[in-house]
Amino acid sequence: MKYDRTFNFSAGPAMMPESVLEEIRDEMMNYRGSGMCVMEMSHRSKVFQQIIDEAEADLRALMHIPDNYKVLFIQGGGTLQFAMVPMNLMKHGKACYIETGTWSKKAIAEAKKYGEVQIVASSADKNFSYIPDCSDLPIPDDCDYVYICENETINGTTWHKLPNTKGHVLVSDQSSMFLSRPCNVADYGLIWAGVQKNVGPAGMSVVIIREDLIRDDLDPKTPIYMMYKTHADNGSMYNTPNCWAIYCCGKVFKYLRNLGGLEEMERRNKAKAQVIYDFLDKSKLFRGAVVPQDRSLMNIPFVTGDKDMDAAVVAASKEAGFDNLKGHKSVGGLRASVYNAMPIEGAQALVAFLEKFEQEHK
Amino acid sequence: MKYDRTFNFSAGPAMMPESVLEEIRDEMMNYRGSGMCVMEMSHRSKVFQQIIDEAEADLRALMHIPDNYKVLFIQGGGTLQFAMVPMNLMKHGKACYIETGTWSKKAIAEAKKYGEVQIVASSADKNFSYIPDCSDLPIPDDCDYVYICENETINGTTWHKLPNTKGHVLVSDQSSMFLSRPCNVADYGLIWAGVQKNVGPAGMSVVIIREDLIRDDLDPKTPIYMMYKTHADNGSMYNTPNCWAIYCCGKVFKYLRNLGGLEEMERRNKAKAQVIYDFLDKSKLFRGAVVPQDRSLMNIPFVTGDKDMDAAVVAASKEAGFDNLKGHKSVGGLRASVYNAMPIEGAQALVAFLEKFEQEHK
Repeated sequence: MKYDRTFNFSAGPAMMPESVLEEIRDEMMNYRGSGMCVMEMSHRSKVFQQIIDEAEADLRALMHIPDNYKVLFIQGGGTLQFAMVPMNLMKHGKACYIETGTWSKKAIAEAKKYGEVQIVASSADKNFSYIPDCSDLPIPDDCDYVYICENETINGTTWHKLPNTKGHVLVSDQSSMFLSRPCNVADYGLIWAGVQKNVGPAGMSVVIIREDLIRDDLDPKTPIYMMYKTHADNGSMYNTPNCWAIYCCGKVFKYLRNLGGLEEMERRNKAKAQVIYDFLDKSKLFRGAVVPQDRSLMNIPFVTGDKDMDAAVVAASKEAGFDNLKGHKSVGGLRASVYNAMPIEGAQALVAFLEKFEQEHK
Repeated sequence: MKYDRTFNFSAGPAMMPESVLEEIRDEMMNYRGSGMCVMEMSHRSKVFQQIIDEAEADLRALMHIPDNYKVLFIQGGGTLQFAMVPMNLMKHGKACYIETGTWSKKAIAEAKKYGEVQIVASSADKNFSYIPDCSDLPIPDDCDYVYICENETINGTTWHKLPNTKGHVLVSDQSSMFLSRPCNVADYGLIWAGVQKNVGPAGMSVVIIREDLIRDDLDPKTPIYMMYKTHADNGSMYNTPNCWAIYCCGKVFKYLRNLGGLEEMERRNKAKAQVIYDFLDKSKLFRGAVVPQDRSLMNIPFVTGDKDMDAAVVAASKEAGFDNLKGHKSVGGLRASVYNAMPIEGAQALVAFLEKFEQEHK
């Protein structure tokens, strides 16, 4: 990499494509002859309208989003969406959640404020190291939606096959795998993703919502900002949006299209994760924390099984110049987050380091 | 100005200091040897903790914020604060609001969802062209707070003397005059400001709140994100914050300190606004929309009194290369927003243009 940049394995915010950062830098003092930086533009100006329109169009093209879905750019991340989803979608006051780790648990805790939450499947029994079988769940008829966290950032699991919702609306938190692979939007009622993991700067969520789920008969105490309708009716500009994040994310959407779209991104992500999983599977010191069939392509937690050894490798990784490899305390060990913008060379360098460490600690 | 930049009179987002933008550009590919752009940093990293700590320290120094006030960086702007203020501060379910224009009206509409709102003074009778006398308001004893919008962006009024709240908590929306002049924080219970007008990029509010007003006995349906306590207890990092906005705003705080602080900023803002007001007061074609004693130093609406002439001058201003001068439809005419980062040369260039226009339309 140019500019002495580091391989940053942070779980988020995380790496962005170098060419995108270069473009942003070059447009800083004067965006395409507008005489302004994007941070200085009125969101009601023609030049900004073009930026947001193009961002939405590129995202629609990338994900093949059907016309009956709205794309919303909403400030705030997961913490706000954990409340917005039940506030807007719990029409009959009942929802089913699948508990697969830290982030689905946070969503469950918040949803309980707004109605009845049924946990219809869980992998808590094995420290969230797998995705439960969801082919035949006890979903009540009056359930408003079924909620999943499609990639658990901390626990390192991914849904490779969606749950059978028995005809109910599926809601998915895609934050840590958004745009990492093709996605059939029609399978979902609502997809949301905080953009700070796999796309751009922290401070915004993308919400993709089927139009018939946008309601205006909410609890009268719902803040106007927290109604999806507010954003849907105003092209995400009822209020001043996070213009900078829209601009940066738009550039990443275009970068992904030029790369060959989500099919190509998935190919690269698989190759990259494979480098690390192959090493873990043959290592005698390290092992992955997740069952092979449910492994994430984005977040790879692994342990030695010995706390002191875990601490030693974390310390050595820092000395070797790798950033943010320490695992979350709930899993322990290490975690390598290898989002879209991490080059395969980062995975290779990490494995070379781990191999050397293992060699030296036989 | 370098880089062919324009005099941008937008009401917000708006101009930022050129030297700040240059610094941001120069740190884009690798922030101070970290190997990352600030957009890519884990918010839990030491390097980012230093950025947020320094931003808070510089703001505290600039405003001389007393130790018993918390400084919070919260995603979202006014629309979210309009709800957060009553959700958190309406302990007895009653608040007094002073109605001075578009933005206080929006705050009133949202607050009514959460309790009883008494409008104790209003300037609606004269299209919000003045600040009402607030020396002796009918404030009930059990009122939780008195709310003002300290600078009405659309209507162009500013409070030059705060209302007599008779010992009740004063809450102020300072969005469009934040850091434009010295401010005695101890006069307020809570100050909030969306940063996109006078500081940095859209996507964040700064909230300055007296510690004893931070409660945890709120309505159990309050989203965790919307409790000030959530942010206060976690150094504004319960969740991933808008790291980029914190970084950019921090640079502006430091820029203002180096300039000589808010006293110097006020001196410059007065001189700059004076250029425009002096012209308006002697013009036979244009007149300011606000009574002289309540005029804003930031937003200057003015009209010819003739709709066709107003339209002609707006069209001519665009041709002359001025951006965003059209007035809001509720006031008509033109509006020049001359925030902190607008150089006096911008005001002078505008007046030269208006003088020429007047000359040609005698």
